[in-house]
Amino acid sequence: MSKVRLGILGYGNLGKGVELAVRQNDDIELTAVYSRRDPSTVAIATEGVEVKPAEALESGEEPIDVLILCGGSATDLPKQTPHYAKLYNVVDSFDTHARIPEHFAAVDTAAKDGGSTALISCGWDPGLFSLNRLMGNCILPDGADYTFWGKGISQGHSDAIRRVEGVADAKQYTIPVEEALEEVRSGSNPELTTRQKHTRECFVVLEEGADAARVAEEIVSMPNYFDEYDTTVNFISQEELDRDHAAMPHGGFVLRSGQSASGKKMLVEYSLKLDSNPEFTACVLVAFARAVARFSNEGKTGALTVFDVPPAYLSPLDGAELRAHML
Amino acid sequence: MSKVRLGILGYGNLGKGVELAVRQNDDIELTAVYSRRDPSTVAIATEGVEVKPAEALESGEEPIDVLILCGGSATDLPKQTPHYAKLYNVVDSFDTHARIPEHFAAVDTAAKDGGSTALISCGWDPGLFSLNRLMGNCILPDGADYTFWGKGISQGHSDAIRRVEGVADAKQYTIPVEEALEEVRSGSNPELTTRQKHTRECFVVLEEGADAARVAEEIVSMPNYFDEYDTTVNFISQEELDRDHAAMPHGGFVLRSGQSASGKKMLVEYSLKLDSNPEFTACVLVAFARAVARFSNEGKTGALTVFDVPPAYLSPLDGAELRAHML
Repeated sequence: MSKVRLGILGYGNLGKGVELAVRQNDDIELTAVYSRRDPSTVAIATEGVEVKPAEALESGEEPIDVLILCGGSATDLPKQTPHYAKLYNVVDSFDTHARIPEHFAAVDTAAKDGGSTALISCGWDPGLFSLNRLMGNCILPDGADYTFWGKGISQGHSDAIRRVEGVADAKQYTIPVEEALEEVRSGSNPELTTRQKHTRECFVVLEEGADAARVAEEIVSMPNYFDEYDTTVNFISQEELDRDHAAMPHGGFVLRSGQSASGKKMLVEYSLKLDSNPEFTACVLVAFARAVARFSNEGKTGALTVFDVPPAYLSPLDGAELRAHML
Repeated sequence: MSKVRLGILGYGNLGKGVELAVRQNDDIELTAVYSRRDPSTVAIATEGVEVKPAEALESGEEPIDVLILCGGSATDLPKQTPHYAKLYNVVDSFDTHARIPEHFAAVDTAAKDGGSTALISCGWDPGLFSLNRLMGNCILPDGADYTFWGKGISQGHSDAIRRVEGVADAKQYTIPVEEALEEVRSGSNPELTTRQKHTRECFVVLEEGADAARVAEEIVSMPNYFDEYDTTVNFISQEELDRDHAAMPHGGFVLRSGQSASGKKMLVEYSLKLDSNPEFTACVLVAFARAVARFSNEGKTGALTVFDVPPAYLSPLDGAELRAHML
């Protein structure tokens, strides 16, 4: 079988992660990186792979089987995914949960128009965590769902802190509360408030002359982001931030705590501990890109999510090999 | 949509579990229990559902959409699944890992002959654990797999003890070694021996006058079952066994410990903690029976495994609901 030819649009942390993930999959090759920046300013890690302007994609003739869209969910993907789904098979990691239905509808129309296959909202949440929520609900209909995130860097919360006056730089860790996790694991199906599930820890670099007390107060009382949480603010130097908080770890837990009709308790727990959030997300995208290529070969068009993909489609191995070695 | 009509063949622990699981799924109904025993001697828990002789199935005309085969893997299922797959859509929990390829081939031929859909080796291992092994491998191709079982009752090992001369009754618990689990979680990818991964704890009732020391020695040195493990043998009374060890708990852990191409460590962990092994297995079978009914409606014939089932097929909800609430 010929290799699956991937294109990457957007060479940020996620795009770089996809580039890395391709190296671990012999049946997949990177054809080109597409960028909205001047290609001559984009130095990629893989030798022999071209960086092209995003406009090159407009022809619909680029030699790629699947285009992985590595832009952001706030402004890039709502436009990019429907646009490129008309031209290529695509995978995105659209993660604004509340807007998934409208995004799906727009991408579905575009992909059907273009005769392509488009997988949206892939990664770990939405993605692998969603699969575990779905399966937990199907297998244990009488039960409760719990999702905890962290310990890890929240990009959105870090950005929110950086917008506070007097803040030069910041990183924010979301931390699951161990006692709450243990309570869920006990099978007691607790009702947990936002504050009981996660704490938030901030590492903040002040601008010169900024009032630390006011900055701290503004952070911990920030609506939506911090006011419902127990938040710790630590002031450190830029050197310390760069040295100790440059990594992008993340992870979390999905639990389904249920019972059988006779009242026997059952607990399903799924967890991820990731030294790099974007690199792991990229690994997931690449595995699902393989599935998209297979669906496309079968003539399937339109939008899909991880819920629609038979797990065997993620593997380079055939059914007989999977049954013999993995079942 | 009309309900999925289930039949159960075999009314042991698993069959009883399926009967219980049906109650938790509004879109599924139990049509009949089929038994090789005299139906008049089989009292089932559900009012209004008939117990019929297994022979009634031979017509191929029983009013069921899916037949769940609740026999054992050693002798029942290798014959039953191909036999009934010619007549009905079926689901089994065949769990002799080494013989899955030949079982699949036999069932596939039969189901294609009969124009039916047959899902084999469903449950949690094989089943949910297999899915996690597969997905772990696809997402983190550079890594190591670990499966731990327990703490739980192993039926096979309990049976083996009962065959020792002088043993009146016995239960055996398989227990994962916490230190080994922690070592795996640390990301060090240890090579673990059989002895390092699990211990075995036996609760044994002696026949009157039996030599406890000889029985204990015979158990701990039993090839394949115990000789490669650290095994503890506790002698107790039948009353104690019945009082304290009648439940059938089980569970376990599947871990994939890998790294990205840049060397970032990633850990995926899936675990089950089940107060009743057969009742949980039954919950899985019923969810997958829903998928089998859907495949059959689509005209798909032949054998399948959990690897072939899009997760959405396990749910009574439609795609739009799943995307809105679970993704």
